[in-house]
Amino acid sequence: MRPIVALLTDFGTRDHYVGAVKGAILAAEPEARLVDLVHEIPAHDVQAGAYALEAAYRAFPGGCVFLCVVDPGVGSSRRALALAAGGYFFVGPDNGIFTLVLSEHPQAVVHEITNAGLFRPDVSPTFHARDVFGPVAAQLARGMPLSEVGPAIGDPVVFPVARPRLVGERVWEAPVVHVDRFGNLITAFTAMDVTAILAEFGGDPTEVLVVVEGIIMPLARTYSDVAEGEACALPGSARRLEVAIHRGSASRVLGASRGAPVRLRRA
Amino acid sequence: MRPIVALLTDFGTRDHYVGAVKGAILAAEPEARLVDLVHEIPAHDVQAGAYALEAAYRAFPGGCVFLCVVDPGVGSSRRALALAAGGYFFVGPDNGIFTLVLSEHPQAVVHEITNAGLFRPDVSPTFHARDVFGPVAAQLARGMPLSEVGPAIGDPVVFPVARPRLVGERVWEAPVVHVDRFGNLITAFTAMDVTAILAEFGGDPTEVLVVVEGIIMPLARTYSDVAEGEACALPGSARRLEVAIHRGSASRVLGASRGAPVRLRRA
Amino acid sequence: MRPIVALLTDFGTRDHYVGAVKGAILAAEPEARLVDLVHEIPAHDVQAGAYALEAAYRAFPGGCVFLCVVDPGVGSSRRALALAAGGYFFVGPDNGIFTLVLSEHPQAVVHEITNAGLFRPDVSPTFHARDVFGPVAAQLARGMPLSEVGPAIGDPVVFPVARPRLVGERVWEAPVVHVDRFGNLITAFTAMDVTAILAEFGGDPTEVLVVVEGIIMPLARTYSDVAEGEACALPGSARRLEVAIHRGSASRVLGASRGAPVRLRRA
Repeated sequence: MRPIVALLTDFGTRDHYVGAVKGAILAAEPEARLVDLVHEIPAHDVQAGAYALEAAYRAFPGGCVFLCVVDPGVGSSRRALALAAGGYFFVGPDNGIFTLVLSEHPQAVVHEITNAGLFRPDVSPTFHARDVFGPVAAQLARGMPLSEVGPAIGDPVVFPVARPRLVGERVWEAPVVHVDRFGNLITAFTAMDVTAILAEFGGDPTEVLVVVEGIIMPLARTYSDVAEGEACALPGSARRLEVAIHRGSASRVLGASRGAPVRLRRA
Repeated sequence: MRPIVALLTDFGTRDHYVGAVKGAILAAEPEARLVDLVHEIPAHDVQAGAYALEAAYRAFPGGCVFLCVVDPGVGSSRRALALAAGGYFFVGPDNGIFTLVLSEHPQAVVHEITNAGLFRPDVSPTFHARDVFGPVAAQLARGMPLSEVGPAIGDPVVFPVARPRLVGERVWEAPVVHVDRFGNLITAFTAMDVTAILAEFGGDPTEVLVVVEGIIMPLARTYSDVAEGEACALPGSARRLEVAIHRGSASRVLGASRGAPVRLRRA
Repeated sequence: MRPIVALLTDFGTRDHYVGAVKGAILAAEPEARLVDLVHEIPAHDVQAGAYALEAAYRAFPGGCVFLCVVDPGVGSSRRALALAAGGYFFVGPDNGIFTLVLSEHPQAVVHEITNAGLFRPDVSPTFHARDVFGPVAAQLARGMPLSEVGPAIGDPVVFPVARPRLVGERVWEAPVVHVDRFGNLITAFTAMDVTAILAEFGGDPTEVLVVVEGIIMPLARTYSDVAEGEACALPGSARRLEVAIHRGSASRVLGASRGAPVRLRRA
């Protein structure tokens, strides 16, 4: 199998940046297969990058290398990282972008990238994706041991992860962490959170209601469990509770955006 | 030759969805080559997906698998389909997205996807592209016989295709079906329709005028047959009559959008 | 190594056009590896395409074929070109899109594409990327000699390249040539221009100031050399002077867009 490098960036698609990174990877490993994971992470939004990475990486075959570059601190003293977790490799800046991967894999092996012999000549202080991370990802993809990038470290940067909190008797609240293209609201409630909350009600989803921006909706299994135009909450495809409107946009209809509080409570 | 899977979706590029589908395809067939056909089909717009597919699929080499997912009914009782037509394979929901392919290939062999052994474990009710269609497309790409997906069916869903109609003596009308990035208006007149209409005028294109939003324009061969800023209609690259402004946007200049009526009449 | 074809177009991502070109390349050379360089060049903006190409092509491995199609004159009498320069191949319309590559490689070998035996049957007058350029790029990628595309020519179209000019004693001015996704302003000052100007000040960057829209800023090495929210100018990753706001958008904060004059002067 030829090695796979999946790319997640905030570079967007209107500039040449993603293309240049791909060129640099292919220059280092001509047999690499490049897969665009997503490039429309909002500029400099490390947390959004972390959630997108968490939502997608498990779908890939083991051995994949994820090149993850949302890097507002490029050229500063922030460290560069390469890590092995869950059968995958991850390469990117040490700014919290791997927070959710590390949270799921506490045994992850994390190394700082210091081996300048792996970089392109004349590293640009503003484009480490092309000159540092891309070549390192390419080398890992072709089988280079992780330890060759530099020393192991024990303190990668992580951000505080939003978690559900009890805000009343059997009332849990957590924020929206992402609004997708369809207007679905992805929340900080994980599928495991929902399972635990349901257990408090004997596992009966009809005992639970979800409240977003004052609108009350049921827990459902899929969009079509409610009528067209109606709201529901359901365990989404990325293992998080998701608020949706059947064939509509929950974000637009409910007037909710990232950060909006979502509550689960007794029916 | 390694197998090719071309992807057409309404997932857009701001989320991780396309990336996750690609990961799932590669997990099922590591040698698959993935080609983005288009991902900016307007959300839930099955007809737009059908027109984009029709416009592009013939350019690909035979044997390609087209994964086509515009799927507002995901998780409902709508069927999942895999079909063989024109030397290609197509995989997606049974909601009309294959209407124009089926219209061109009435002998297409259509199967319902029911073989759950092909799916990813724990199919999400809201992400069949990743958990059902992607893995099935990967298997077809690696040579699995079509019949293994499930039983043949004879009644795939199709939508009524807009066709030119006579609205006066030698006056034909058909709507715009797509506005492209350049503002070109792609119409429901096929190249064959135009040929048939021209035949009524002895094959002389100067005998025919095109009218859009009250503006009269000639039938041309290419954009530069008219002066810069002027409008013309011409047989477009996707075998449909197309209305264009030379080095301008027909949509903006003419104030026309999808659904706008386009007329062909005697000069 | 399998051949690489990198694509740069103004086709955008909302239509099927890029997908159809890829299909046509794969139909001509099934082993081609396709890399998206960029597709969001503004419609018909040949100069923007030329700058994007210049910024990225050097990152790719030698032997790559760049398919560059920003082609407002498609179907007219404009010529079609294939060229070899700097160890790469380039294919596209003869309208100036290769200006900056040719400027860097005056010894480039340029051929007009006239060999219709390489084209797809029934060339559309409006889609040469699919029917002419794509198949030619595929053949070059698989090793066809450049001379087989048609005769060598000596007069490819080039546009006048914006250059710094002296506008006062030790005051140089050049325009912004591109605004990127992050709001960074890429200028017509090349890294070599900046080096030459610095030499006039004994190589001391603190002796030089940069002025954009009346705002004075220092020459820096990277974004974080100034405080968050502050402006600086620095040698960017594409070998051009670039104006940036640390963790902000220079375009928005300074109110500057393409064409805005940027001055370098004595501190």
